[in-house]
This record gives sequence, C-alpha cells and structure tokens, in this order.
Amino acid sequence: MTELTELMYAVDTFYFLICGVLVMWMAAGFSMLEAGLVRSKNTAEILTKNIALFAIACTMYLLVGYYLMYSSSAGGFLPSLGFLIGAENSVDAVLSGDADAPYYSMRSDFFFQVVFVATAMSIVSGAVAERMKLWAFLAFAVVMTAVIYPISGYWTWGGGWLDAVGYSDYAGSGIVHLAGATAALAGVLILGPRKGKYGKDGTIYAIPGANLPLATLGTFILWMGWFGFNGGSELKMSDALSANNVAQVFVNTNAAAAGGVIAALILAKLWFRKADLTMALNGALAGLVAITAEPLAPSAFGAMLIGAVGGALVVASIVSLDKLKLDDPVGAISVHGVVGIWGVLAVPLSNGDTSFGAQIIGILGIFVWVFVASLIVWLILKAVMGVRVSEEEEYEGVDLAECGLEAYPEFRVANVNGGGFGRGASGHVAHPRPQPHAE
Amino acid sequence: MTELTELMYAVDTFYFLICGVLVMWMAAGFSMLEAGLVRSKNTAEILTKNIALFAIACTMYLLVGYYLMYSSSAGGFLPSLGFLIGAENSVDAVLSGDADAPYYSMRSDFFFQVVFVATAMSIVSGAVAERMKLWAFLAFAVVMTAVIYPISGYWTWGGGWLDAVGYSDYAGSGIVHLAGATAALAGVLILGPRKGKYGKDGTIYAIPGANLPLATLGTFILWMGWFGFNGGSELKMSDALSANNVAQVFVNTNAAAAGGVIAALILAKLWFRKADLTMALNGALAGLVAITAEPLAPSAFGAMLIGAVGGALVVASIVSLDKLKLDDPVGAISVHGVVGIWGVLAVPLSNGDTSFGAQIIGILGIFVWVFVASLIVWLILKAVMGVRVSEEEEYEGVDLAECGLEAYPEFRVANVNGGGFGRGASGHVAHPRPQPHAE
Amino acid sequence: MTELTELMYAVDTFYFLICGVLVMWMAAGFSMLEAGLVRSKNTAEILTKNIALFAIACTMYLLVGYYLMYSSSAGGFLPSLGFLIGAENSVDAVLSGDADAPYYSMRSDFFFQVVFVATAMSIVSGAVAERMKLWAFLAFAVVMTAVIYPISGYWTWGGGWLDAVGYSDYAGSGIVHLAGATAALAGVLILGPRKGKYGKDGTIYAIPGANLPLATLGTFILWMGWFGFNGGSELKMSDALSANNVAQVFVNTNAAAAGGVIAALILAKLWFRKADLTMALNGALAGLVAITAEPLAPSAFGAMLIGAVGGALVVASIVSLDKLKLDDPVGAISVHGVVGIWGVLAVPLSNGDTSFGAQIIGILGIFVWVFVASLIVWLILKAVMGVRVSEEEEYEGVDLAECGLEAYPEFRVANVNGGGFGRGASGHVAHPRPQPHAE
Repeated sequence: MTELTELMYAVDTFYFLICGVLVMWMAAGFSMLEAGLVRSKNTAEILTKNIALFAIACTMYLLVGYYLMYSSSAGGFLPSLGFLIGAENSVDAVLSGDADAPYYSMRSDFFFQVVFVATAMSIVSGAVAERMKLWAFLAFAVVMTAVIYPISGYWTWGGGWLDAVGYSDYAGSGIVHLAGATAALAGVLILGPRKGKYGKDGTIYAIPGANLPLATLGTFILWMGWFGFNGGSELKMSDALSANNVAQVFVNTNAAAAGGVIAALILAKLWFRKADLTMALNGALAGLVAITAEPLAPSAFGAMLIGAVGGALVVASIVSLDKLKLDDPVGAISVHGVVGIWGVLAVPLSNGDTSFGAQIIGILGIFVWVFVASLIVWLILKAVMGVRVSEEEEYEGVDLAECGLEAYPEFRVANVNGGGFGRGASGHVAHPRPQPHAE
Repeated sequence: MTELTELMYAVDTFYFLICGVLVMWMAAGFSMLEAGLVRSKNTAEILTKNIALFAIACTMYLLVGYYLMYSSSAGGFLPSLGFLIGAENSVDAVLSGDADAPYYSMRSDFFFQVVFVATAMSIVSGAVAERMKLWAFLAFAVVMTAVIYPISGYWTWGGGWLDAVGYSDYAGSGIVHLAGATAALAGVLILGPRKGKYGKDGTIYAIPGANLPLATLGTFILWMGWFGFNGGSELKMSDALSANNVAQVFVNTNAAAAGGVIAALILAKLWFRKADLTMALNGALAGLVAITAEPLAPSAFGAMLIGAVGGALVVASIVSLDKLKLDDPVGAISVHGVVGIWGVLAVPLSNGDTSFGAQIIGILGIFVWVFVASLIVWLILKAVMGVRVSEEEEYEGVDLAECGLEAYPEFRVANVNGGGFGRGASGHVAHPRPQPHAE
Repeated sequence: MTELTELMYAVDTFYFLICGVLVMWMAAGFSMLEAGLVRSKNTAEILTKNIALFAIACTMYLLVGYYLMYSSSAGGFLPSLGFLIGAENSVDAVLSGDADAPYYSMRSDFFFQVVFVATAMSIVSGAVAERMKLWAFLAFAVVMTAVIYPISGYWTWGGGWLDAVGYSDYAGSGIVHLAGATAALAGVLILGPRKGKYGKDGTIYAIPGANLPLATLGTFILWMGWFGFNGGSELKMSDALSANNVAQVFVNTNAAAAGGVIAALILAKLWFRKADLTMALNGALAGLVAITAEPLAPSAFGAMLIGAVGGALVVASIVSLDKLKLDDPVGAISVHGVVGIWGVLAVPLSNGDTSFGAQIIGILGIFVWVFVASLIVWLILKAVMGVRVSEEEEYEGVDLAECGLEAYPEFRVANVNGGGFGRGASGHVAHPRPQPHAE
C-alpha cells in the first residue's frame, strides 16, 4: 500500500472504532433507561442484567456469532458451521492479519459489529423486566447473541437470502431492532404480565418508573450513540462521497429523533392532557428507530417526518399493547418492534432502488425466525429452570432475591400506584397492605 | 478532487461530525445539571423542557434558523428572508450536494451548527425553572431558535455587521452563552422569583437542588462536550497548523475549566467556610465559558488564569444576583451571562488582532438585540397564554401539573428550606386522580 | 511537510485528542462510581473531591508534572528539575510551536497525558472515602500529581531506568493503576477503617452504597473511556499497521472487560449465592485493568481470559482485604492494585519480548516509590492539618461538615447496616447509637 492508501485505511478504521465506541455507549443508555423505568425494588437486578448481557453478547459473538454471520455462503438460509471443526476457523483466525478487509481493519469491523448484537439483546431486557429470573434471562442471552441474531443478520448483512431478494436495511431497523423486539415479545408472552398490572375488572394500572432523570439520561445516551449506530453503517468515510453520506446520516438521524419527540409530546398532550415525559423519551427513541433502515436517502425534512410518524406511532402502540395486556414495562416492543416495522416500510418512500415487497419479505422473515426460535428457547428454559420468579420474590422485588442487595438501600420508599408496594427490602414490609396514605 | 483532497475533505468532515456529537451531548449535560439543581417536585418538567427544547431547536434551525444565519449578505443587520419565498431556498436545498463547502461537507457544518443553537436555548431553561409554564417556554424556544439566535449569530458568524467591525468570538462566549443568558434574564424579570425564595424581611432562602450527583454528572458532561464546542470551532483539522491549533484549544479549554474549579472552590471556602460543591460545578462551567471566546491564543497557563477569573466571578455574581432578587435556580445568568462578558472582554488580552472597543460593541449589540427581542416575546406570551404557573401548581410542583407524573414517585420526600415544602405528591396532595390500588 | 505528511500529522493529532477526551470522561466515571458506592451522607463530599482532584491534577501536571515526566534524561532515577530555574523551561515552552513532535502535535500529547494523571489520582479518592478530610486529600492530590506520579511515570514512559531494564506496560496497569492503588493503600493505613465497619468481635459489616444506578453508570463510563486509555496508548494511527494495532487494542479491551464481568458474576454467585451487582461492576473494571499492561499482543480470546482472571481475582481480593481490616469503600485497591499487578505479570504470557523478571522489578519499583513517598506525605499532612474528620463529623456525614450541603437534601434516608445511621442532616438523627446488626 502507498502511504496515502494506508492513511485512508487508517481513517476508515478510526471511523469504525469511534462509531463502535458510540454504539458500545448505548449499553449504558439502555441500562439507565431501564433502571429509570422500573420500580426501585427491581433496579439492581435490571442493572445486573444489562451489564451481564453486554458481556455475554461480546463473548458469544466473539466465540460463535461473528463467524456465523460473516463467514457463510452468499444467498443462503443456513450459515456456515465451520467454526465447529477447528481452531483455524475461529474468530481470532478471521481477525488475524491477512484477513483484513481491503480498506479498513477487520478488527475494527468486528468491534463495530459486536456492539450491535449487544444492542439487539439490550432491547429484550426492558420488556421482561421486574418478573423474570436473572439466570434464565442470561441463558437466553447466550443463545440469542450466539445464534439467533447472527443467523438473521447473516441473511442480509452477511449476504444471505434476504440480501438476494433485495431487502434493504441500512443500519438495522429490522435486523437489530425488530429482531430484539420480537425476541422480547416471545418472552413477554411466556412470562405474562407483572402482578398488579392488570386488574380483574380489566383496569390497567400504571406502574411508574422510579427514577425519571435516569431514564432521560438513558435516552440522551442512546440518541448520542445512535450517531455511531447509523453513521458507522455507511462503512466508509475516506472519500468525499462517503463523507457526504455519513454527514447526511448524522443530520437525518438527529432530525428524526427531534421529529419523534415533538410528535409524541404533542400527541400525548392532546390525548392525555399532559406533556408526558416518558412519551417524549419514547418518541425520541422511536424517531431514531424509524430512520435507522434508511438514514441516507431522505432529505433532513423528510427524515424529520419519518421520525415524527414513529413518535406518534409509539404512543398509540404503547396504549394498544396495554389493552392487549402485553406488559412491557419500558415500551421496548413498541419502540423497537412496531416502529422498527415502520422504519423498514418507510425505506421505499425515499430510496427508489427498494420495493415494498422486498421490505415486507424482510419483516416477515426476521419476525418468523426470531419469534419461533426465541419461543422455543424460552419454552425450554421454562421447562428446565423456570423463567419467572416466585410470587413472593416479585412482591419483595427481584433485587433481594437475585442480587442480594438493593439499588437504593438508604432511601425510604413509598408505596406507589399499580405495584401495590414499594421495595420489600427493609425486611419488614408486609405484602398485601392497605393503600398508602399521606404522611 | 484528487484522492488526497478527498481524504482531507473526509477528515475535516469527520472532525466536524465528532465535535458535533460532543456538542449534542451537552444537551444531556444541561438536562442533568438542571434536574439536579431543582427540587424533586419540578424535576420531570425540567427534563421534559430540556429534551423538547433540543428537538425544537433542531427542527426550527433546520426549517428557518440556519438559512437566516448563513445565507445572508455580508456586513448587514437584517438577514435574508429568501427562505420564505420558495422551496429552492430551503435548508435542504442549501445542504444539497452542489452546495458543499470547498473542504468539508456542508451537511457536517449544519450538524455542528444545529447543536450550538440548542446549547443557547438550554441555558434559558435552567434560569426559569420551577415556576414557568411548559408550553409557554416551548413557544419561546420556537422563536429563540428560529429567529432571535440566528439573527445575532448572523451578525458575526454569518458575516454580518459585528464581523465587519472586528468583533471576535471564537466559539461563542457572547454569541451563544451571553445570548442564552440574556434571553434567560428577560424571562426571569417577567416571571419573578419562586415563591419562598425571598422573605418579606429581605431574607434570602437557599433552595437546595435535590440531586447533586446528577448536577455533577451534568457538569462533567458539559466539560466533555465543550471539547467539541471549542475544538470544532477551529473549523479545520486537516493540515499541521490547524491540527496544532485544535490541540491548543483542547489544552486551553481543559486548563480554563480546571482554573475555574480551583478558584471557585477556594473563594467559596474563604467566603462561606465550606467547600460548596455547587460552586465548584459552577466554577468549572464558568472557566469553560470564559475561555470560549478565545481558546486558541492564550498559553495553557494563561487559559488557566482566564478560567480562574471566571470561577471567582461566578461565585460573586451568584451572590450578587440573589441580593438583587433575580432568582436563577441554577445560576445560568451568572455562568453564561456575566462570565460570558468576561470571556469576550478577555480576548484582547491574548489576541493582538482584536480590540476592547469591538468587543464591547459586540457585547452591547448581542445584549440589546436578544434582550429586547426576548422581552417582547415573553410579554406576548404572557398576554396570550400566561408564562407562570398558578400558585397552587407551584406549591405542588410543576411535574404533576404539566407532565402528570413525578420524577421520583417512590422516594419519600422531606420538607426542605426555602421552598417550604417538598413534593406535594406523596399524598396529601391529591390531585384528582383516582387512586388505583394494589392487590 | 507535504500535504500528505501534514494530513497524517493531523490524523494522529486528532486520534490523540479524541482518545484524550475519552480518558477525561473517565473522571466522570470515577465520580459516579464512587458517589454510588458511598453512603448518601458522604456523597456531596466525594463529588467535590473528584471534580477538585481532576482540576488539581490538570493544573499541577501543567505546572510541574509533565515537565518532570518527559524532559528528563534517559535511563535515570531522578527527573530533571530544570523547570525550577526559569520560564524558558516551563511546560508552555515545551508545548510551544517548535517543540512539536515529528508526527503529531505535542499539545495533543500533553492533553492525552494530563488526563492519565487525573485517572491515577481518581483511584485514591474512592479508597479513602467517608472519613478523610477534604482539604488534606486535596493537598495530597497536589503532591501526587505534581511529583509522585510523574517520577515513576518518567521511569518508564519518560525513558528512565525502568524502561532501560525492559519493564513493559503498554497503557499503565502498573504506572497508572498500581501507582494510584498504592497511594490509596498508604492512605488507608494511615486513616484506619470507617467507624462501624468492623465490630469488636471481628464481625465485618457491609456498608452498602447508596445509589447503585450511579455506580453502574460510572462503570460504563469507565469502560467507554478505557478505549481511549488503551487505544490511544498505541501513540500512532496513521498507517495500516498502527491502525490494525489500535483496532486490536479496542477489541481486546472490550473482550477483557466482558471476561471480567462474567468471571466475577459467576464467582459471586457460587460463593455468595447471589449475583452481586457490585462484584459484576468491579469485575468489569478488573478486566479492564488486567488488559491494560498488554492489550495488543493477546488474541481476543486470550484477552477475554486475562480479563476473566482479573474478574475472579478482584472478588477474592475484596473479601481478603476486608478480612485484613483494610477498609476500602469502593474496592479501589483490589481493582487497581491487586489486578494491576496481575496485568503487569500477564504481559510475558503473550508478548515474547518481555520477561517476568523485568515485570517484577517494575512492580516493586513503582510500589516501593509510591508507597514510601505517599506515606511520608500522608504522615506530614496528618501532623500538620490532620487527615481524618472528627468522630462526630463522620457520624453526621462529611457532606455537612466539609461542603455545608447535602447530596440528596429532600430524600428521607433510612438507617442502614454498617454505618449505624443514615444522613445526620435531617436533624433528629441521633448520633452514637449501638451497632446495627445484619439482617
């Protein structure tokens, strides 16, 4: 390579690494978002799940997933299983010097990809929060990040059959977000709702999150990280056209998130008469998910509209899922699933090289695979180790049962609506007790 | 373009985008800072304001502000209004391919600029916290980010009359920070102080912020983001001189913040006998604001001194404004306004190409324009929809009134000084919402 | 320089600056980690310490430390003291134009180095938390960052005797982490344990941290920042080999952290029967510390194993230090000291150019120097101004005594184990009362 070619190689590698750091940072965003939206008695456990799932995703993708996703033959359904037959096929071998991609370090590609699989898995943890066993969840994470996500990922980004039929998904509204939400949906169906969420007479009880500043912080972290998520997915930076494209992706990603906030906030104000912060947060995330399948082709104004539709959709979806008694404490299925579908379908609106037909095939392909595979895994886990904590553990909070500690041990906790009781941690907190009253 | 020129273009574009991401991150910093410094009963609302104002700023600057600021004729007072007469003048047209700047993507320029206007607007939200109506604030944000900021921004950075008279403001101590603080000052004068802040006998009651770890986090986020704010304002990275300059800006920005912390902490210790954390935080921000008008010319040691003066100034200013009964819950007017003026005036101390005369003209120009324009908008809003929440809503906290939820619904809240009452939420407050109960 | 050489210079400078920003961000990580792991009554003070130590480190390293560390003669024990004899030797002079390094801006080098010294100092604050006088701590920070760290830093990175004997420490498992932990150990020995930590009968009382979401956030921030810490330590990015190396360092840093989480979590589950979140967090940090001395040579799988050993080691070390009645509220000595030693010793496992002998000499050299020098400084401070707060101040919390404010003034605090009482602030909390017992 000439010095100039080496420098281009270095710039593209650096671009991948920095975008990867931003996506890695999204793990903190999901952690804070979910920790803010659950009750205090379940906060330490959701934090444990989040840091553990990130570690598991990074490890399993290194050991198995990356190989499955990117070492398989073009146009296929089933990935290569070569990694099973010898060390020369291990990911470390793929990453070794002579396997470098033509214009950037393959190691930087791995780093960028590995943080994506963690994102997909992070989506699941919020939806199953406050009632799921920790170790069953982590066992699911192993399978999801080693096999389930890599296989459907291979179908498009690894050059499999979805790529061949023309399915287009720039940064993964479907491949990452819908996939995560679908696995979450299967889990929610197996688990059932939290105790106290739905009354016998059909009443839906709000269970407010314990710490909204954390949830807001998480949303801003995700917004920030999304510039790496979408911006890095151009996969090249070192020429003028690529640079223009990456810049357009940054502008559009930001515009879509802004549109999502505004639409969700106005709709919530009109519908509920209140400027509901949690809807604004979900609106931001919905705008981001909506633009992820095609953040390059739309104008900035178009991106804002795509995000705004996402923001409106997420409010309607959260209300609707609650009516269906699908209990998703953080709204992950609405944000990543329902809006993920919208994002995939919106691609042909601005990108003339794509078709609604191929997009629908992609949605169906990803949904059916991830749903069926996840359901099987959840059912096996249910049979083998159980997936739901005991009723008493749920009442007292999973923090004590699973982690043996509390997230906020010093702060006195009041009983709140919906959950029926605060943290059981102080030991003497009785379960069924009368409505709390004012001090 | 040759490959080398394209690569330089790509590097400068990437530099703008990464610096822009750091400035975008400052939105999270302001959110956490303000959420930490208000009382818990007003926390969800300040978070809602912050994410909504960021979305509004991004949207209005896209639709109107960027065009006003950067498509107008050289040396003028009034910006071009061409965007009113046709789609060909829209920002998207400005951003389209052939409008790219010679050495970096115009889209990356827009991204970098759009996050600046959000910063200016973020300054306002803290100063008017705990008593202002949410939607009146958001209406103000629309006008501020579409018109008020872009016009005075045009005067210098868009090549208008302030640029012509030689006003120098590298990254915006005046253009961004003083402008934001001036709009905030107008708002504070219209709104008046919070109930319980100033006693009838002249006593000043401290109203402590509810969550100082959040405020500290916000300060660190702002410190981090400021490297993008100042570092990106060199506007070029791809040659050795520019690279040296950007590096000097990073070093000086950090040194000034450090000087601000030390000066504020020592002054607070001498004055109040305590190492007041909030003063240390404001000292860091003051150091950053102080160096923003000229982060390149001073030596690192000089930058530290400029920051230290800022840090001392902010402590004195916060005490003084309180004596004037200008109630600014987070100290934004002191940090961004008073120290912003110091930053602008400090430019000629190290940059021989500038003059105190031109700097004073700049300060007066920005202050008069933003103050008068803001005052008019605040007064119109007061007449049309009202700007202040009712006394009862203020007592009970704006979270319930405006957002219909609480930031920390489970945590029991004690009454604290100054406000006379904590969050009303825990029960005696009782707002017409049906108490759903637990099982 | 040709345009191409200038562009390479710019890319390497930009790489240093961005990595430096990530390391600066670690200051926020340490702040949040420590604020989350102490009790609420000591939270404002630990935050004050953290922001002040960062400011002091940046200032003292500018004034003295950088000169000591990088302007001294090759192979020596004692650094140059030239900075004492005239302005022409000041750091600003070193940083002036003609002193630029051949391939990147010396200013960016300073920025990258200055945030490292802050990291070393941040390690100390956690270990001495909850009982140390604020201003004695800050005085120690002055000496540590001006003299103690720079001298042992000079021995290796400045080309001194440890470099000459072949000690290898890529990004500073020993030079930064062990050094910080050693200074902390000396402080802990002088200070003694917190009241109520160890019972007269030998019982060890757990004193849980007040805010685990903050501690988790801090860990994620540190994980993110570590990509800059290790990734920037390659010191070059602009050719293909360097780019590959940097990418490998990112991959390995991430893999080691993941391995640390998994090992610590599994060991905690087996040992304590609970998935202890704080052990998972310390496991992540241990993985990061372990890989820091050699993040380039191992394969990704090897890095994961090195991190996993670190994660297991930190759990065992935390338990062991408690048995030795070395009271380290956040586990800093275990994470950075014990695992730092493991990281240094692990270098020859993958890097054939190094030897265990030289690594052990490095460990001993750093430990003896930092321990003796720190001990002397701590003893002088103890004699001159005292290092420990009064028993009453410790009971009531150092926030009120030192900072005159509370971190969470509105939240009612419950008594918790170990500390014997919560925040004294609410007034009615009685002080000396019998040791609480465990549940």
